[in-house]
Amino acid sequence: MAKKRDPIPSHAKCVFKGKIFEVWQWEQKLYDSSTKTFERLKRPDTVQVVTVVGDKILILEETQPDKSTPFLTLPGGRVDPGEDPLTAAKRELHEETGYSAQDWSLWLAHDPVGKIEWTIYTYIARDSKEDAEPHLDGGERVTAQLVTFDEFLALSNDPRFYDPSLTHEFVIAHYDPAYKETLRKLILG
Amino acid sequence: MAKKRDPIPSHAKCVFKGKIFEVWQWEQKLYDSSTKTFERLKRPDTVQVVTVVGDKILILEETQPDKSTPFLTLPGGRVDPGEDPLTAAKRELHEETGYSAQDWSLWLAHDPVGKIEWTIYTYIARDSKEDAEPHLDGGERVTAQLVTFDEFLALSNDPRFYDPSLTHEFVIAHYDPAYKETLRKLILG
Repeated sequence: MAKKRDPIPSHAKCVFKGKIFEVWQWEQKLYDSSTKTFERLKRPDTVQVVTVVGDKILILEETQPDKSTPFLTLPGGRVDPGEDPLTAAKRELHEETGYSAQDWSLWLAHDPVGKIEWTIYTYIARDSKEDAEPHLDGGERVTAQLVTFDEFLALSNDPRFYDPSLTHEFVIAHYDPAYKETLRKLILG
Repeated sequence: MAKKRDPIPSHAKCVFKGKIFEVWQWEQKLYDSSTKTFERLKRPDTVQVVTVVGDKILILEETQPDKSTPFLTLPGGRVDPGEDPLTAAKRELHEETGYSAQDWSLWLAHDPVGKIEWTIYTYIARDSKEDAEPHLDGGERVTAQLVTFDEFLALSNDPRFYDPSLTHEFVIAHYDPAYKETLRKLILG
């Protein structure tokens, strides 16, 4: 599922800069030699963390003030300007849960939408320990819970969980015992 | 995988209208009673068509002037303003391939991105026949090919094909023979 998109051309212009999204446009020459204004978006990359605590994995039940129902997610958030994704992953994990980890590895890097320059980085953080209180902003309500590896894979059947690239991994693991063991080793060590 | 997102609130304002994307913002009250400007996007819904021709399925190899490599896709495109998705599916199939179909049904309706009001409708068009030449615009180069049902499912392993919700269906069918038969019946009749 990891797939890198064609970048926005270097001669494109930023025509709008919002709170999250930037809109970029350029004049594109077509196959019949006419031209047309093409448009794509940029947004900050995001990170999420498979946080391993002993033999359990930390997931979050989260509510947001503009969403009607709670959802299940991994700790994570936006990469700040100039920040590298691993630093963002460590910062977001600590802010959102109070956990720090010793052993970090990148699992997936996935560009989910063709018309948006946006990569989601999924890290595995092994040997994680709670060493502080969470620092949530006023737009988050989060309850952390520790689940078993099997419960983690079963998120693919939970309508409150929405992550196509993780769901893809979980569905293969559900049917293929060898792949499930590979994933167990990758995540739990 | 089909999941309907929370709509943009009715008091939100459109702060930018681009060629494809609109940017909407509103002042959101947070849990601590502070407020913050929230942002989401709208874009035209899109349609795609599983076009059944005899016992084969029509897929397209497409190149676009801003993409470095060809990709595999189903016939489809954007829903025009005021158009219903089924009408758009019939129009796009005919424009892009010259095919018309007798028997239409909606298979999937999928909102792929949380922050964008955007639904992808996947139709099944059975008993399809070529009755015209394709009418491509200058931004498309398309080669149609007919594939078997098994070749269609195998698109989930082709790096030139990118469709998370179809890939999800194909992966389950790959491992679960009963689901594969359900899908065969759904598509081929």
